[in-house]
Amino acid sequence: MLEEVQKGLEGVLVAESGLSSIDGDAGRLVYRGYDIETLAREASYEEVLYLLWHDELPTATDLEAFSDRIAEERELDVDVLETVRRLANADEEPMAALRTAVSALSASEPEAEADPEDLEATLRKGRRITAKIPTILAAFERYRLNEAPIEPHPDLDLAANFLYMLTGEEPDEVAAETMDQALILHADHGLNASTFTAMVIASTMADVYSSVTGGIGALSGPLHGGANQDVMEMLIEVDESDRDPLDWVKNATDEGRRIPGFGHRVYDVKDPRAKILQARCKELSEASGDAKWYDYTTTIEQYLSEDQGLVEKGIAPNVDFYSGTVYYQLGIPVDMYTPIFAMSRVGGWVGHALEYQADNRLIRPRARYVGPDEAEWVPLEER
Amino acid sequence: MLEEVQKGLEGVLVAESGLSSIDGDAGRLVYRGYDIETLAREASYEEVLYLLWHDELPTATDLEAFSDRIAEERELDVDVLETVRRLANADEEPMAALRTAVSALSASEPEAEADPEDLEATLRKGRRITAKIPTILAAFERYRLNEAPIEPHPDLDLAANFLYMLTGEEPDEVAAETMDQALILHADHGLNASTFTAMVIASTMADVYSSVTGGIGALSGPLHGGANQDVMEMLIEVDESDRDPLDWVKNATDEGRRIPGFGHRVYDVKDPRAKILQARCKELSEASGDAKWYDYTTTIEQYLSEDQGLVEKGIAPNVDFYSGTVYYQLGIPVDMYTPIFAMSRVGGWVGHALEYQADNRLIRPRARYVGPDEAEWVPLEER
Repeated sequence: MLEEVQKGLEGVLVAESGLSSIDGDAGRLVYRGYDIETLAREASYEEVLYLLWHDELPTATDLEAFSDRIAEERELDVDVLETVRRLANADEEPMAALRTAVSALSASEPEAEADPEDLEATLRKGRRITAKIPTILAAFERYRLNEAPIEPHPDLDLAANFLYMLTGEEPDEVAAETMDQALILHADHGLNASTFTAMVIASTMADVYSSVTGGIGALSGPLHGGANQDVMEMLIEVDESDRDPLDWVKNATDEGRRIPGFGHRVYDVKDPRAKILQARCKELSEASGDAKWYDYTTTIEQYLSEDQGLVEKGIAPNVDFYSGTVYYQLGIPVDMYTPIFAMSRVGGWVGHALEYQADNRLIRPRARYVGPDEAEWVPLEER
Repeated sequence: MLEEVQKGLEGVLVAESGLSSIDGDAGRLVYRGYDIETLAREASYEEVLYLLWHDELPTATDLEAFSDRIAEERELDVDVLETVRRLANADEEPMAALRTAVSALSASEPEAEADPEDLEATLRKGRRITAKIPTILAAFERYRLNEAPIEPHPDLDLAANFLYMLTGEEPDEVAAETMDQALILHADHGLNASTFTAMVIASTMADVYSSVTGGIGALSGPLHGGANQDVMEMLIEVDESDRDPLDWVKNATDEGRRIPGFGHRVYDVKDPRAKILQARCKELSEASGDAKWYDYTTTIEQYLSEDQGLVEKGIAPNVDFYSGTVYYQLGIPVDMYTPIFAMSRVGGWVGHALEYQADNRLIRPRARYVGPDEAEWVPLEER
């Protein structure tokens, strides 16, 4: 009982993992050895899922079979759809609705009776959840708009099909590619709080539905998944203020306002994912002929990093600083940004749950007890 | 990166806590300094909830107000009830149904918009969840039996009302007291996997609905909450075998079968909760005039502890070894035992979430990366 409390478990190694590695000084992120830049440029989200869930990249035949299965498994059971409809009508928060709907999916899982130690079955269950999350989110959005959900499009990949189910229109190539890239960038990132949640749950040999449901709950927290929405809300405020973005940010920092999207526990330099999304934001701005969002973000970044000296303090823009503007330009409602994060990160949750269960040990830490050693009971009537 | 991996976080201190303390050598468990034996004998479950969520025992006035609020908050929203009905009809596992239904509760939370840092609001939300879990479980059971759910009884306490909603009959005093005691015994137990899950989720400042939903998921795992059901299934097997229980257990151990309900990571001696439940089991057996369940458990315990020498190895009966027979004698279906554990442990989940958020730090450990450092990209068509 003499050891120190490891508050936040910062720097504590809790497992070995071959999934992803972060070099916070160099600003490098790899999935199974592949640089995130390479994956974002060369791979599809399905290919990255395969890489995270297996040990290696798929062959063309494997990838086709894998993608086909995901496409086949997109449809929702009527009970789940009804639950989503009721949640939308009750004006539930999108992340809470996703948490409930994913939890509800297990009732129609065809392999519900599988042995918890059958990790092949767990992988198939994880794949079914991953296939259905975009359908849940799009249906929720449609119900909120009093529109009927749109059936999944069997010929579109996961990213393009999501945009299609959201809007009813097949996305153009730039939009589909951008969405796919955003999903790749968010798929895994070490033992962040939601992934660790999924692992702790998996360590009881609970079902992967429980791990993913728990991961969604953790990601819903404002200290974890919500920052991209905060960034976009700030940028909309800049836009509506009709002020020059440099004036706006000077004024905001003078007032002591915290600017979201800066700093990360594991990066001291600019997040590699932020760089990729920044480039995407620029492309989308050029394609649309309206560069204002790109201008706002770069102006704010430059002012904070250089004039305010954040770069020297090791506080740099993180992935959330640029993902919001990308989603915004794809026409996605601001409160769907964190759910989209979940739609991607499910790849990591399932991957880490599987990897941990393959060499499982129940996760059960201790707390230092700071309450009274012995308290004397006083009967209710004498208190 | 040179440190050791703390697999399972065994012995790692992750927080300070004043809620409960376990002395595994002495077989002692206290909640805020009060021995579990004293609480089981003297307190009600509502009183224990108050103790865990506040710093001290309630006065009579406080307890009355607190219990009244819980009684008022038992009813379920129509959407949640419909979700429970659909889950029962789909033959969902009770723990999975509870996970989905608790997650669904947030849609009708009156303080959904409260600031995550408003811990008073979090406490009230936690109280509402705690009040509603028995109603969810009883409704689920009634729907499975094709019967209408029974409205909560405003004059009964939480334990008695649960038995009432399950059966439609007010329980007798022994049954009500036994249920109340079982809830007290399971309410908190350090940083077990489900409580730690709730804490990790809380550390993102996510809603307490997310913490409790995650806790239920972790508790559903066979390495955590399921053992009391396994014990009872074994005892039913003994009963149906028509063999002498001593013969049965000798034969089972000769065959190398693992007997559930023995051993616990934190206890080297008999779990204090097991002793209390053993006494309860005896009382219930005497009251009914049929002592077989008590005989089976004590025979098996004695054989394993002494003849097989488990007691010397520090492997003793845990709480699950006796809770099953108690619930069985109360007429509760075997697959509801783990859900009843959740109905009680929600007290600990909410208490630890609140305590951690009061001095919060995001929980984000690390994994030792064991994948390749650099992998060379091979285009799909060349693989």
